[in-house]
Amino acid sequence: MRNKPKEISKEGSFVRQTNRFITPFGNSPNELPIEAGKYRLIWCAACPWAHRTVIVRNVLGLDDAISLGMVSPMRPRVGRVDWEFALDEGNVDPILGVRYVSELYLAADTEYTGRPTVPVMVDIATKKAVNNDYFKLTNYFETVWGPLHKENAPNLYPDHLQQDIDKMNEVIFHEVNNGVYKCGFAHFQEAYELAYDTLFARLDQLEEHLTTRRFLFGDYITDSDVRLYTTLVRFDAAYYTAFNTNRTLISEFPNLWGYVRDLYQTPGFGDTTDFDSIKRHYHLSITINPEKGEPSILPKGPDESKWVTSHNRESVSGKEEKFLYTK
Amino acid sequence: MRNKPKEISKEGSFVRQTNRFITPFGNSPNELPIEAGKYRLIWCAACPWAHRTVIVRNVLGLDDAISLGMVSPMRPRVGRVDWEFALDEGNVDPILGVRYVSELYLAADTEYTGRPTVPVMVDIATKKAVNNDYFKLTNYFETVWGPLHKENAPNLYPDHLQQDIDKMNEVIFHEVNNGVYKCGFAHFQEAYELAYDTLFARLDQLEEHLTTRRFLFGDYITDSDVRLYTTLVRFDAAYYTAFNTNRTLISEFPNLWGYVRDLYQTPGFGDTTDFDSIKRHYHLSITINPEKGEPSILPKGPDESKWVTSHNRESVSGKEEKFLYTK
Repeated sequence: MRNKPKEISKEGSFVRQTNRFITPFGNSPNELPIEAGKYRLIWCAACPWAHRTVIVRNVLGLDDAISLGMVSPMRPRVGRVDWEFALDEGNVDPILGVRYVSELYLAADTEYTGRPTVPVMVDIATKKAVNNDYFKLTNYFETVWGPLHKENAPNLYPDHLQQDIDKMNEVIFHEVNNGVYKCGFAHFQEAYELAYDTLFARLDQLEEHLTTRRFLFGDYITDSDVRLYTTLVRFDAAYYTAFNTNRTLISEFPNLWGYVRDLYQTPGFGDTTDFDSIKRHYHLSITINPEKGEPSILPKGPDESKWVTSHNRESVSGKEEKFLYTK
Repeated sequence: MRNKPKEISKEGSFVRQTNRFITPFGNSPNELPIEAGKYRLIWCAACPWAHRTVIVRNVLGLDDAISLGMVSPMRPRVGRVDWEFALDEGNVDPILGVRYVSELYLAADTEYTGRPTVPVMVDIATKKAVNNDYFKLTNYFETVWGPLHKENAPNLYPDHLQQDIDKMNEVIFHEVNNGVYKCGFAHFQEAYELAYDTLFARLDQLEEHLTTRRFLFGDYITDSDVRLYTTLVRFDAAYYTAFNTNRTLISEFPNLWGYVRDLYQTPGFGDTTDFDSIKRHYHLSITINPEKGEPSILPKGPDESKWVTSHNRESVSGKEEKFLYTK
């Protein structure tokens, strides 16, 4: 039995920490102001939670408004769980001048003792973390950040679907996005099997759901698709082996496999997906427990050339267009 | 970097120890005599090297002549690499009266310092290991043990094919049977990738080879098929995840997947295949390094019900019969 780290219940289940910085973005005095050039979004290409925010930022054309800083997929070996700007010259972010993400959290809260996480929106002037609410960040980008979208940006969160998207996102979060982590970080067999059964029951249901729908809500990509994508695209290369989610590869589900390639081949998705980072993180560096040893071999498979193969999902919607444009 | 155990070269490659007890079975004075009831074959259901001997023993009907003892797939935690009769009452083999396989090796050679391995043929009267030559044991069963075969036993090693079978067995041994271990036990990335590339190049070639042949040598099962089977049947459940052989599942190769199910559904093969033992050994207990920690989660997948699905490989040979009967 490994030592029990934080975020593991006495039943051996993974219980993800809650987000610390959750002040909303908006236009009222108590909210974080919407302003081009004010924030830097810190992400890691390996991390599904961060990846979703970058996809939405790029699809909506918020690139000019929100700059991006990227940390290494390899955790630093510093005796704590952290992220490091090890891809930058001198190992510091060129705009914020810090080496570790923890510095941004501690600048905002000197008492912060949780894991410093990505994505995190950082106020560039103060170098403080201001929002790490991965659950809501994309929704802020889709709504209150609207005035800064590129011209003719698609609508990923249409008013009439918001309640349904929120409900779908809850399910996807608990059973899929975080579901794979519950499999991978479980400390007891029973907790693992419960998470595994829940995960695959949901994937079976989604497989069925996508028989008659090109995307989760029909013909057009929504915020829910972004969230499902970031887990599915990592599944075969990372979770199947590293997190023991080995009932079925995504490439073995006909609809999910077509669906995830359809998204991969969409600007904003595949071009922000970095399998090398994903594999190095999950196979060589993933841990919520700094005491655990790390392996030294990076699995070479699976074959990435499959991602650009034809998926024929247009036939499900009968439409060439994947995005809903409402402006 | 893990500590370098025995059997790892300075390049980080796995170099399997040679067999210690290799006196042939036969009828000349320096050979081990062929005699019903004289030997006990010790195997582990997880082990592919032992599994091949049990398949051949059963297919040839040597069950009455050679008794079977079975060790647990879980290595004992005794500070050395060993196998234990932990499935037997009182943790001792009911015929040999020993708890560990090492006792049988040390009885034969008090200086023995290698890993005690299965399969091993043990002289029941002396309780000494007499032959652990997994490379040749099936060939002895197929040839010099002929007088003790059941009536109308098939011929797995026909005279006119023996040279070709031997050649094929060499290739399968280095690139497939031991190839997966070279992937799983490699200590450096380069050694792993070399073994991985060699393994999958060979599987691609075998996939092609089996397009026009139901079995490796055409219409009938031979000794080579037994050897390829024991690795293929373990591949998706064990090696793909535990040994990083994750380019392609066997179930993703159309011919290999049909071929291995064809064998699985043949008496002697599937009925001696124990996925539970295989998974527990490779995921929870595999090690050539007693200092290495062991994980606590047993991956639940993949789905075993696939093994009994229809394979339609009869259509490749046009024959119902899978065995060559020459008597």
